[in-house]
Amino acid sequence: MSTTDERTRPFRLLLEYDGTDFAGFQLQGKGERTVQGVLETTIARLSGQPCRIHGAGRTDAGVHAAGQVAHFESGWRVPAEKLAAALNCELPRDLAVRRADYAPPGFHARYSATSRTYRYVVLNRSQRSALLGRFALHVPRALDVLAMRAAGARLVGVHDFTAFGRPDAPGKSTVREVTNVDVRAWRDCVLITVRGNAFLRSMVRAFIGTLLKTGTGTLTPDDVENLLNSRDRAACPPLAPAHGLCLVRVAYDGTRHRGS
Amino acid sequence: MSTTDERTRPFRLLLEYDGTDFAGFQLQGKGERTVQGVLETTIARLSGQPCRIHGAGRTDAGVHAAGQVAHFESGWRVPAEKLAAALNCELPRDLAVRRADYAPPGFHARYSATSRTYRYVVLNRSQRSALLGRFALHVPRALDVLAMRAAGARLVGVHDFTAFGRPDAPGKSTVREVTNVDVRAWRDCVLITVRGNAFLRSMVRAFIGTLLKTGTGTLTPDDVENLLNSRDRAACPPLAPAHGLCLVRVAYDGTRHRGS
Repeated sequence: MSTTDERTRPFRLLLEYDGTDFAGFQLQGKGERTVQGVLETTIARLSGQPCRIHGAGRTDAGVHAAGQVAHFESGWRVPAEKLAAALNCELPRDLAVRRADYAPPGFHARYSATSRTYRYVVLNRSQRSALLGRFALHVPRALDVLAMRAAGARLVGVHDFTAFGRPDAPGKSTVREVTNVDVRAWRDCVLITVRGNAFLRSMVRAFIGTLLKTGTGTLTPDDVENLLNSRDRAACPPLAPAHGLCLVRVAYDGTRHRGS
Repeated sequence: MSTTDERTRPFRLLLEYDGTDFAGFQLQGKGERTVQGVLETTIARLSGQPCRIHGAGRTDAGVHAAGQVAHFESGWRVPAEKLAAALNCELPRDLAVRRADYAPPGFHARYSATSRTYRYVVLNRSQRSALLGRFALHVPRALDVLAMRAAGARLVGVHDFTAFGRPDAPGKSTVREVTNVDVRAWRDCVLITVRGNAFLRSMVRAFIGTLLKTGTGTLTPDDVENLLNSRDRAACPPLAPAHGLCLVRVAYDGTRHRGS
């Protein structure tokens, strides 16, 4: 139990969700079911106070999370060690709190985060799957994993990623640092892992769409580097569908909030 | 293309399904949605002929499959290499054909099978999952994997498994050969793999229910052996819930029809 006598305390949540039936993380217009909206409503009902949730990554509609991080400040007198269980009793089946604790002083889920890791799953076999359909993009045509890996390497580094996405507001920086783009075959899947300090809107899905074009031979790794350098959003291949993507990890100064 | 001039040809299917919304594999009364029923209706519609499906394992309501095998005989003139794609276009999202081919002469999905392999997934962490909820049983209390493994070893062999299940019809043999019961921790899960030549009704879920009691310390491996020897169905712990179970593989004389 905290001995603080402040009115409100900051809580930190490690979240998991199946994005299929959510219109993304961030609060939208009325009637849209979002992760933020469901959390805020649930916490407000349990605590009897309004609640504002801040998430580390604004995942798009349909994108899943195994390791999203969020925080909120509340005068709710619940002990942090009972918070996860209390919320999981009330939250819908497609949203769960893996862990909850008190946030350290000054912690902000979004602005304190030092890296985000996303994973994309491609089911690369001739027939679709009845088990992985919610979590993997089905690509029947055999993908060239080595070409995809080579193309992914061209995206690593500190770059102006204008070709792959837009900033939150016009005029804001489009420079990000991508530290890792890993492509590997696993059973009948191709797993693509992308890590960076932060991402422009839809940037990860633009990366994946581009890598898929490399995997099918439409683009070469050189084409991908030229695309990056062009800073031409219109030249970018279509975004990969959301349902193959999952936010697996958010890191804070070396402290990792790890997904499953 | 086959050059046979017989009226009907036997086709073999490797099937995958999410059991959540099925009342099991086998055809039930009117109005029950079963895997067999959906397949028969779909094939009859496409071929213009009635169809009877035979499956290798009669999975219970809610049990999943990554490697169920089935066969049917039909005068349908579809080439086997186009059958999987043709069916996958028409089947619902929670049922898919991984592979289809002509069955060898005399092949019967059920009677020719020499072993079935089932896997049970237990999510063994304090909080539930939003991603694995359909496919894993959530057990918050830490399980003793070594005790479960020791108990599982007592079930291996040729035994009268009356304590763990019933035969298809009264008076039929209750002797089966269990060749493998493997229990291992993987990330925050406990995976239990059970393989045998065949199983009594609900026998695998009775095994898992019993192993879970061992994992929580309610039963010892000796208790499990005594239960087996008692042949007392009433002494068996409750069945484990269906949704953690998946039929992953059916083998035919060394030829394996492997699940993912």
